[in-house]
Amino acid sequence: MVARDGEARAGILHTPRGPVETPVFMPVGTKGTVKGLTPGDLRAAGAGVVLGNTYHLYLRPGSDLVKEAGGLHRFMGWDGPILTDSGGFQVFSLAETRSISERGVEFASVYDGSRHVFTPELTTRVQEDLGSDVAMVLDECPPPNAPREYHEDSLERTARWAARCKEAHGKEDQALFGIVQGGLYPDLRERSLGLTVEVGFDGYAVGGLSVGESREAMLEALATTAPRLPAGKPRYFMGIGDPVGILQVIALGVDMFDCVLPTRLARHGAALTPDGRLNLKNARHRTDFGPLDPECSCETCTHYSRAYLAHLVRENELLAHRLVSLHNVWFTVDLCRQARREIRAGRFEGWSRAWISRYEEGRTA
Amino acid sequence: MVARDGEARAGILHTPRGPVETPVFMPVGTKGTVKGLTPGDLRAAGAGVVLGNTYHLYLRPGSDLVKEAGGLHRFMGWDGPILTDSGGFQVFSLAETRSISERGVEFASVYDGSRHVFTPELTTRVQEDLGSDVAMVLDECPPPNAPREYHEDSLERTARWAARCKEAHGKEDQALFGIVQGGLYPDLRERSLGLTVEVGFDGYAVGGLSVGESREAMLEALATTAPRLPAGKPRYFMGIGDPVGILQVIALGVDMFDCVLPTRLARHGAALTPDGRLNLKNARHRTDFGPLDPECSCETCTHYSRAYLAHLVRENELLAHRLVSLHNVWFTVDLCRQARREIRAGRFEGWSRAWISRYEEGRTA
Repeated sequence: MVARDGEARAGILHTPRGPVETPVFMPVGTKGTVKGLTPGDLRAAGAGVVLGNTYHLYLRPGSDLVKEAGGLHRFMGWDGPILTDSGGFQVFSLAETRSISERGVEFASVYDGSRHVFTPELTTRVQEDLGSDVAMVLDECPPPNAPREYHEDSLERTARWAARCKEAHGKEDQALFGIVQGGLYPDLRERSLGLTVEVGFDGYAVGGLSVGESREAMLEALATTAPRLPAGKPRYFMGIGDPVGILQVIALGVDMFDCVLPTRLARHGAALTPDGRLNLKNARHRTDFGPLDPECSCETCTHYSRAYLAHLVRENELLAHRLVSLHNVWFTVDLCRQARREIRAGRFEGWSRAWISRYEEGRTA
Repeated sequence: MVARDGEARAGILHTPRGPVETPVFMPVGTKGTVKGLTPGDLRAAGAGVVLGNTYHLYLRPGSDLVKEAGGLHRFMGWDGPILTDSGGFQVFSLAETRSISERGVEFASVYDGSRHVFTPELTTRVQEDLGSDVAMVLDECPPPNAPREYHEDSLERTARWAARCKEAHGKEDQALFGIVQGGLYPDLRERSLGLTVEVGFDGYAVGGLSVGESREAMLEALATTAPRLPAGKPRYFMGIGDPVGILQVIALGVDMFDCVLPTRLARHGAALTPDGRLNLKNARHRTDFGPLDPECSCETCTHYSRAYLAHLVRENELLAHRLVSLHNVWFTVDLCRQARREIRAGRFEGWSRAWISRYEEGRTA
């Protein structure tokens, strides 16, 4: 840890592919590509870590093929750090049918309905094949509103799975992170945290949140969990990427987070600015010859006008997706850079409050 | 003209935005964007001229808006030369209903069915508003197999329209090209050529070909036209972009040509290589970790494998369209660079024959 400001932390994540300054937003390269962007774009944006989805890569193109290609870095042409999830979240969010046992989880592929079983041992091996720098344990991700009894059983099983992942894990230059579950029950979060820390990992994720519960409930659950995680290890909040949410989880001591939101928004013509989220389909942008975000130095903001982007969005041009995705990722990465600066300067809270206030005022205007 | 080799010519097209070496392939930026690519990509590929479609830009986003933005160069961020067509071809190929009179052509917008009239005066003014470096006269583009009598009337009217375009044209730093029509009738081509040259233009296009007739018929019609065009003026063949076709029209003395083919093929997963057109959906590419085209130095070929591109194509990823489009444009631009070199060296015919032979062998393999 480099600096601490309240619960917020600025630190360094050490990886075989170099150090990464935290807090860090990790763009999601679902199937080995951050949609519409090249690794060169991501480097230009200053992205520190790219996330790969084990569920998707296992099924498409197949982790055996990625391994044969020399690993995910080589396959997709990204030489910076990669974090892979375990596929657990997709099994629980995408699959229509699944059956969980002590052994693992059986599910039907979202692509072709074929049956597969993810076990802790398999998802660990698959992530070793992918060659990511940070791998995640297989966890069950029940809905936050599942009955307490369900969460109790599930978090115990997730902890046993975590131990099996650690046992199966043999790749020395790959970190392995545990995942804390427990829904919205503070005592269950604590129980899950205790069990996970007892197994012992290189870092810890808070999972099972940002999946439909209210933002207040999410932050409350995170607030009872994050500060109790080992201070010397990186903390990863899974699945947040909106600017306000990012600042809120940083405030609670989170170091890493990922989300498809910046690129997904872009494909719907929505751009992030310090004055709120902006819908490029809105008629007022048609004749606005100024940049998307005058404070941004990305390729999109320095080369193209809102009028041009609005035209591309209306015509559903490929270039719209590319240019707005580039900006949204750049914007989100840059927000983290600013947050790191403010944490180191010891003024994160005031800066964050002002930032959110400006963003939310613009958003409702 | 810098060099001549048989009928093939190497020359320089002088534009307000700098000289362009010919023969030159002009990628098509239909609505102010070459699909999926940035001006930076086009510059990297060595593209000399980008084409804009007056029909589309007039309707979307509107040439008034492009003018307000400071012209098409500024609107789309491309500071190299731009050629705009007159919109005539789209009126005749896209509109389901249209009515031609001496005054001009009335048509229904392909976007919303609204009625519009293109006159020689209007399309000239619209192209002045767009601010292109080379503008085209409004022409009628009848099907090659239309009755002889129809072509006779049509080419006379096209010549009168051409004179009205020249009369209406007032932008001194914009070249204006005439268009020769006449279908597949050699004497009508000659008649159209005579009338068009009589009006007098900065360059001459051969129109109304590559629209469904056989390749032999197209080349025959071109062969009777191109060599009779004024030797000191640039010659533009409208609508060809496949590698073999490019070499065939260069051999007949054409200096400029445009087509959406390289980018359209890319969006369907087809890549151009010296060994033929390659379908990336083909199973054999899934495990081919070599580059798309080992002889190509584009970003796609130097950074990614066929296996990765095949994966992106199968998953219909945005990045597939972008990376294959980039390669196909680069490949086509580079083919013209090679053609220029061979013309200057006085060995175009032999080189071209060998090139086509290798390409067509690969294609049928």
